[in-house]
Amino acid sequence: MITVAVSGAHGRMGSTVVQAVSAANDLELVAELDHEDEISTDTVRGADVLVDFTVPAAAQTNVLAGLAAGCHVVVGTTGWTPEAIDSVRQAAVDSGRNVIIAPNFALSAVLAMHFAALAAPYFESAEVIELHHPNKLDAPSGTAQATAKKIAEVRGSAPMPDATEHDPQGTRGGLIDGVRVHALRISGLTAHEEILLGNPGELLTIRTDSFDRASFMPGVLLAIRKIPQLQPLTYGLDQVMDLPGR
Amino acid sequence: MITVAVSGAHGRMGSTVVQAVSAANDLELVAELDHEDEISTDTVRGADVLVDFTVPAAAQTNVLAGLAAGCHVVVGTTGWTPEAIDSVRQAAVDSGRNVIIAPNFALSAVLAMHFAALAAPYFESAEVIELHHPNKLDAPSGTAQATAKKIAEVRGSAPMPDATEHDPQGTRGGLIDGVRVHALRISGLTAHEEILLGNPGELLTIRTDSFDRASFMPGVLLAIRKIPQLQPLTYGLDQVMDLPGR
Amino acid sequence: MITVAVSGAHGRMGSTVVQAVSAANDLELVAELDHEDEISTDTVRGADVLVDFTVPAAAQTNVLAGLAAGCHVVVGTTGWTPEAIDSVRQAAVDSGRNVIIAPNFALSAVLAMHFAALAAPYFESAEVIELHHPNKLDAPSGTAQATAKKIAEVRGSAPMPDATEHDPQGTRGGLIDGVRVHALRISGLTAHEEILLGNPGELLTIRTDSFDRASFMPGVLLAIRKIPQLQPLTYGLDQVMDLPGR
Amino acid sequence: MITVAVSGAHGRMGSTVVQAVSAANDLELVAELDHEDEISTDTVRGADVLVDFTVPAAAQTNVLAGLAAGCHVVVGTTGWTPEAIDSVRQAAVDSGRNVIIAPNFALSAVLAMHFAALAAPYFESAEVIELHHPNKLDAPSGTAQATAKKIAEVRGSAPMPDATEHDPQGTRGGLIDGVRVHALRISGLTAHEEILLGNPGELLTIRTDSFDRASFMPGVLLAIRKIPQLQPLTYGLDQVMDLPGR
Repeated sequence: MITVAVSGAHGRMGSTVVQAVSAANDLELVAELDHEDEISTDTVRGADVLVDFTVPAAAQTNVLAGLAAGCHVVVGTTGWTPEAIDSVRQAAVDSGRNVIIAPNFALSAVLAMHFAALAAPYFESAEVIELHHPNKLDAPSGTAQATAKKIAEVRGSAPMPDATEHDPQGTRGGLIDGVRVHALRISGLTAHEEILLGNPGELLTIRTDSFDRASFMPGVLLAIRKIPQLQPLTYGLDQVMDLPGR
Repeated sequence: MITVAVSGAHGRMGSTVVQAVSAANDLELVAELDHEDEISTDTVRGADVLVDFTVPAAAQTNVLAGLAAGCHVVVGTTGWTPEAIDSVRQAAVDSGRNVIIAPNFALSAVLAMHFAALAAPYFESAEVIELHHPNKLDAPSGTAQATAKKIAEVRGSAPMPDATEHDPQGTRGGLIDGVRVHALRISGLTAHEEILLGNPGELLTIRTDSFDRASFMPGVLLAIRKIPQLQPLTYGLDQVMDLPGR
Repeated sequence: MITVAVSGAHGRMGSTVVQAVSAANDLELVAELDHEDEISTDTVRGADVLVDFTVPAAAQTNVLAGLAAGCHVVVGTTGWTPEAIDSVRQAAVDSGRNVIIAPNFALSAVLAMHFAALAAPYFESAEVIELHHPNKLDAPSGTAQATAKKIAEVRGSAPMPDATEHDPQGTRGGLIDGVRVHALRISGLTAHEEILLGNPGELLTIRTDSFDRASFMPGVLLAIRKIPQLQPLTYGLDQVMDLPGR
Repeated sequence: MITVAVSGAHGRMGSTVVQAVSAANDLELVAELDHEDEISTDTVRGADVLVDFTVPAAAQTNVLAGLAAGCHVVVGTTGWTPEAIDSVRQAAVDSGRNVIIAPNFALSAVLAMHFAALAAPYFESAEVIELHHPNKLDAPSGTAQATAKKIAEVRGSAPMPDATEHDPQGTRGGLIDGVRVHALRISGLTAHEEILLGNPGELLTIRTDSFDRASFMPGVLLAIRKIPQLQPLTYGLDQVMDLPGR
């Protein structure tokens, strides 16, 4: 039985984590911390693992406090600088506990990106479509950007076939490292990505749909279960999933 | 039994029409004209219907010659001016024969556009994706443009929800009459269109795939069979299909 | 301003209706009735329209009570016999008020079925895939059954091409009036249907996704707004939407 | 420059290989053998690689003849018994040349199956849809069967969630090693497969489309280019692609 503390337990993500941990037979929820509560040996109540889904600004402080309180720490916030990651790694080594930082906990999104990178060297054409709810401020999504960059990295420099001469309205989408990315904003959708890879006569499509926050829970639970066996610092859920690399 | 003559019978579309007419039990192929052959009472050999898939430049001349030779005429070329259409209509009235001009003979493409127009008034969001082979020179496709315009026409002026503030690479696609259109060019594809219509909690997707020229044949055969009962001039396969209109 | 009363206002659907009506500028919520509350002139507080999403067993009683209380009535329950519908129609005529009964209020689902019926006569092949969450007890869904029946009705008796000779596991799905229906049960999904229509060289796909109960609200609001102008009894949201028929 | 001989060069697949080899800058076509021609040192004209797409009955004889003529051999036929494979392996070892046997040369189909196997352990639900032209005699396709078996193998024994109690028409598809498989036969389609993997709140979809024989050429060319560096016997294009395994 792995014991778990959740910080930010009353936030939207935190409360979903509380539910998911409570429902898992092999995990025991021992502490729910509000975002205002201090993280300390007292408050984490001996938890093996602290899960932190508070705000990016507090993430580094929370991780260090979690390590100091004797926990492995799973963090879901983004915006980490290389320096912050280094400082967390050092603290993890010193404490004998491990940290997982992941920008995206949706297994299907992580797998889609990984598969796109494995497949891209074999195809002439690759384009990315991302579809989100219309309240999103940025286009394209961070995941689509990361996907395009990964495809570009593995493809090498061969240009994709494209005879387009006239595109007065800019319908061919945006170029990210040479890969076309298209962003749709549609009422009713949540977060979706589709990667199309084509050769003469064939098409490979990889699509990931996140319908709600529950989509992050299998990834969070996986991280909780695996963290004791990992390195002091692991960045990215693909590393936790131990996907065969390229 | 309807008798049929095909002009441009050795071109790519024409030879496909020849095959399709020959394979149909209720149609009889009586004449195959090369694009250099004159269209006359002699050469059409008494055909009830002349099908013309030559080049736009020759289309009007061919239609008038076909009418003069006593045929109903089905034409698949594009680029007709209103004046040319009027002149053909008058010639049709005078000859007692009928003409069908259709920019697109793929039933699924015609239906997709028609359904998009019927559905659009009921949805907050509507965007169009078109996907083609990478040898296409223009983006977006004529069909995608026509689809976006039709959607815009029936939606009225209510803006679609879209909170996008940052889109440095232009990934949100091109605007056609207020409707976002996205064009993909992928090896292996032929001609495809997808229309997404969204409301809170629901999505309607209408997709049409044309895999090869055979996709135009059901539309051509339908036109051949229906032309005797139609008006002197019919523009658009949707009119031939007698789809319930809006 | 149309005034609205909601019965079953604390149930799952009812409370969603309460929210949707409250959020609409042209509608005013004047009464929320619990499923135990009596529906009467007193309790509906002069509402123009009563919306009832209680249980099938109570539906007829509630409609009659709503008419007696002077309301038009919009009902979302299923399981109506022809006799019950007739008796409601008579009561509506007598009261000078109108009733809308709809088994499905999702606009996209109603449109998908309607479009499938318009398109099916033009295609050789038609099959239906429905995808739902794994807690569903019945396969296929009522909507998929209704879709298959509608397709069968308009196609006539021409058999679909299918050379299958060996299918030991029964992978070709179930036959409903000669139309193949395939049911998937997948974690993460809610309620989805895809209709595929094929001819040589072309495919038309119509897909509807319902992600949550919010998907029924545009249909409910449409019914509330249109009911004063309709017949005494309207069955099916497609009738409310005034879709061009066949 | 790798020199290539093609046997069955006037068959449907063979002639497509002839075209693809001729169009590749780094390959030289030195011999086209009819299916009646003998394969010998004389007829292969010193080719480094022999590509054989004749009939299963002739495949083993052709491979042995190709090895004897001093060629590496790429074979696309199916129906190999373990004994036949062993005998070919031994002949390859003796001759110092290599053999690749692949049941499917479509890169996208091979990748789709490989990715499904990598992803399946992370998902509660997995089902397979395969879609083909209506002239196919067997359901499901060999690729869909192989995909289902691979998914079953990596999933372990945990049952998928499925509350279905009533399915009178058999719409839930066929069970292959515990994985539901659905087969569609639709005019206009060629060979397509879609694998759906679901967890609460998320879906991963992997889809492969083969539109025509050209889809096998990138796989064939890859095999020709890699065969000199491989083992005496390689079975399956995934082995040639050096995909990271599980």
